[in-house]
Amino acid sequence: MIEIIPIKGVPIIKEGDDVGEAIVKAAEAQGTPIQDRDIIVVTHVVVSRAEGRIVNLDEVKPSRFAETIAEEYGKDPSLVEVVLREAKSIVRMGDGHIIVETRHGFICANAGVDKSNVPGKRNVALLPEDPDLSARRIRERVRELTGKDVAVIISDTHGRALREGEINVAIGVAGIEPLRDRRGENDLFGYTLKVKRTAVADELSSAAELVIGQADEGVPAAIIRGYRYQRSEDATSKRLLRPREKSLFI
Amino acid sequence: MIEIIPIKGVPIIKEGDDVGEAIVKAAEAQGTPIQDRDIIVVTHVVVSRAEGRIVNLDEVKPSRFAETIAEEYGKDPSLVEVVLREAKSIVRMGDGHIIVETRHGFICANAGVDKSNVPGKRNVALLPEDPDLSARRIRERVRELTGKDVAVIISDTHGRALREGEINVAIGVAGIEPLRDRRGENDLFGYTLKVKRTAVADELSSAAELVIGQADEGVPAAIIRGYRYQRSEDATSKRLLRPREKSLFI
Repeated sequence: MIEIIPIKGVPIIKEGDDVGEAIVKAAEAQGTPIQDRDIIVVTHVVVSRAEGRIVNLDEVKPSRFAETIAEEYGKDPSLVEVVLREAKSIVRMGDGHIIVETRHGFICANAGVDKSNVPGKRNVALLPEDPDLSARRIRERVRELTGKDVAVIISDTHGRALREGEINVAIGVAGIEPLRDRRGENDLFGYTLKVKRTAVADELSSAAELVIGQADEGVPAAIIRGYRYQRSEDATSKRLLRPREKSLFI
Repeated sequence: MIEIIPIKGVPIIKEGDDVGEAIVKAAEAQGTPIQDRDIIVVTHVVVSRAEGRIVNLDEVKPSRFAETIAEEYGKDPSLVEVVLREAKSIVRMGDGHIIVETRHGFICANAGVDKSNVPGKRNVALLPEDPDLSARRIRERVRELTGKDVAVIISDTHGRALREGEINVAIGVAGIEPLRDRRGENDLFGYTLKVKRTAVADELSSAAELVIGQADEGVPAAIIRGYRYQRSEDATSKRLLRPREKSLFI
């Protein structure tokens, strides 16, 4: 059996706060202390806040290009400017969406720039600069404080090209191999699976969202307990990215 | 807390078998009887087998077109023929993949035709003809046998356009609203969420895969317990499909 445990009672994280410590303390306080082989899924906006990746839109001077796009699509010019600054390239604009490839290589709406769960009316959160590094830091901090070996996943909410609704995926990982390569395993009838690589870090992010995604309750993180994951000391979320030129469906 | 409980000890399902009853019995036998508001996620291949959606490739006569494609992409002509019969249109061919839109409207590799976990060397499983109906039947059967009101999700493994690895998504639903519409909800700081619809049925399918996806153990279904889902008597997985002409990324 696998348990998905919401970590409640985490104080509002501000710039410079220690996310790892906040999670360890909150988990202890609610009677579910961190255990070895736990997977800790943290929603990125908490990490972004701790890392000071907050921008006040009133302090952003939009470029002429950002103003043009904002007018065309009915958006805030300063927000568009921030999105463009985070983008490596623009994948598509239309229907009120600006889909870009971020500097990390993620393809997502608005470059992951997020208005939700950010204090201050004109503040937005950018994605962490290096979400794998953010995950590694939290993992190290948990080890220092508890002696436990855990996996850490930084999650974000992504739309999909051809399915409605959003799901959570992994944008940063530490201590866990994000893809489970199952080629060579046998099925129930002894048939060897041929092309099966499961994006377990994404599935774990989606599972965690089931307890995190309660906007009014403030659950910034979850523990997933009981899943036997493949440990990795050099894990990176980059392995989950398929280059655009290799896109399956385009 | 949410629990993901693997349902083990389900006998190998054959054509005509009662999937609902098999799940109820196996859940009881392992000491985790079905409860009200459980979500039962069933991997589609079990349903396909029960519904006789198995094709012996030796009995398929490939068309000239299927033979041409098979040669071009190094595939089995009979398999290609089956894929084409299940397809409404072809989205893309290349790199050993045939991505189609199925008659249901799903966009997936090989029209969801599956070699894994199907007995018989030359047998493949097609997707259920109407996975929502399959889910409704299992839900009704569980209610008849146990008196419990549950949600049922039929899951399948899908690739993604721009991310590596596969995840599980919902291809059939009963008793649960597959999209959670969160527009109008408030975030932690009182900001009203604007465009947030979470594909909870897909997230639940991915969560279930964490216990189902052990090819060698034969876990065809899982119970997800403790997730407060929105009940729906006229749920359909069609709500999860975005028409190709509205694709976000293409």
